[in-house]
Amino acid sequence: MNEVIRTQLNHRTIRKFKTTPVGPELLELILDVANKTASAMCLQHFSILRITDPGLKSKIADISGQAYIADMPELFVFLVDLYRNSLIAKEAGLDTYLNSMHSFLSASSDALLAAQNVNLAAESLGMGGVFLGSPLWKIEEFIEVLDLPMYTFPILAYGFGYPDEEPRMKPRMAGEFKFFENKYPALNGIKDNLKDYDREMGTYVDLRNPGKPLRPFTEQVAQLSTLLNSKQPRMMEALKKQGFCVEDRD
Amino acid sequence: MNEVIRTQLNHRTIRKFKTTPVGPELLELILDVANKTASAMCLQHFSILRITDPGLKSKIADISGQAYIADMPELFVFLVDLYRNSLIAKEAGLDTYLNSMHSFLSASSDALLAAQNVNLAAESLGMGGVFLGSPLWKIEEFIEVLDLPMYTFPILAYGFGYPDEEPRMKPRMAGEFKFFENKYPALNGIKDNLKDYDREMGTYVDLRNPGKPLRPFTEQVAQLSTLLNSKQPRMMEALKKQGFCVEDRD
Repeated sequence: MNEVIRTQLNHRTIRKFKTTPVGPELLELILDVANKTASAMCLQHFSILRITDPGLKSKIADISGQAYIADMPELFVFLVDLYRNSLIAKEAGLDTYLNSMHSFLSASSDALLAAQNVNLAAESLGMGGVFLGSPLWKIEEFIEVLDLPMYTFPILAYGFGYPDEEPRMKPRMAGEFKFFENKYPALNGIKDNLKDYDREMGTYVDLRNPGKPLRPFTEQVAQLSTLLNSKQPRMMEALKKQGFCVEDRD
Repeated sequence: MNEVIRTQLNHRTIRKFKTTPVGPELLELILDVANKTASAMCLQHFSILRITDPGLKSKIADISGQAYIADMPELFVFLVDLYRNSLIAKEAGLDTYLNSMHSFLSASSDALLAAQNVNLAAESLGMGGVFLGSPLWKIEEFIEVLDLPMYTFPILAYGFGYPDEEPRMKPRMAGEFKFFENKYPALNGIKDNLKDYDREMGTYVDLRNPGKPLRPFTEQVAQLSTLLNSKQPRMMEALKKQGFCVEDRD
């Protein structure tokens, strides 16, 4: 056990923040951490759009349907970014740059590794935050409101600041159901095998919402599946519109 | 500055390892870190396949075209995983679970945040490692050799252990070209503006390969673009074959 792992194991989502701003030196440090994160072939296919304009933040809160976003001290949108290097390629006289689904996924990995590093850096500095999936849920709206160039794609957002709440950690499924050796197992009777976890999740109390206990995990899965299936965003269209090739080359 | 950020800023890729194995207690700790990583709606749409079988490891080294993989003390394959919850949904009587491109990308975020957390946990324990993009480059071969079920997808691998080399950190592009406020800038004349970085990259010496200096960054970009464009894997076909819906719903 050490300070890094202690910080990692202590992760919890923070949605309510003190008004204390994040100082410029700490911001610079956090961005430096993002910059030093591993990147596939060091092509650095990601960018961060920091949202400071209150009007823009409000719009993002509206689009996301999460009012508290408007009050977040810091809001970073992580972009998959093949645009910057496509400009370099163009200046070098090349007609096209990488825009396949493979390049998109590889660039997503650059962006998301950096996102977790930013999250942990913030937590190590006594801050907390929340990853926002709303860029993907509202992909067309996000691309429009952020006025993003081709070959960029908002894959995840992260809001952070100094916590003004202290939630309990949400229980996770035991490792035996997630971490396997050499062969992915059959997972027969998974619902039954998750009984303990179901019970644990059912007794978890979110201190921000103490009157509303969570449903057992396997019930959440079924419920969310039904709820979310009908709300899937038009992801392929959005990818295509941003210039990513959504078909394999022959 | 603190221990977390110091570790993050000190990241470098390690490809050569001592034969010292990673002890079971440290492995458990690292997997616990993976398990506690943020997850979208806590649906925990990822798994880790730990490769310990030397035969399987050799096959992966072959497929990847990277011989040193066979000797890695630890090798984790990070899976996007909607299979586990699809079993739960099925047991609950639902016909389908989430398998849209949106769900795939959201699950990728679960997997990749965990991957970075694992990397940092290992580094904090005096280990080092390397992210391997070969699962994506050789997607069909990986799915086959790992015998993966539907709704799973190997998005990234990570090999780690105790370092037997001490490479210098590879220089990164200055933050001004990656981190923007409110609006993505035009980035006019990017090649010219990256002159300093080009020079820095051109004088970086990889101690593992001291006789072979790197080319300036903007030249690497142009060169890699030409090289990689012709080698793009059939990603859409692989996604489809694994059960992910590669078309938007009407």
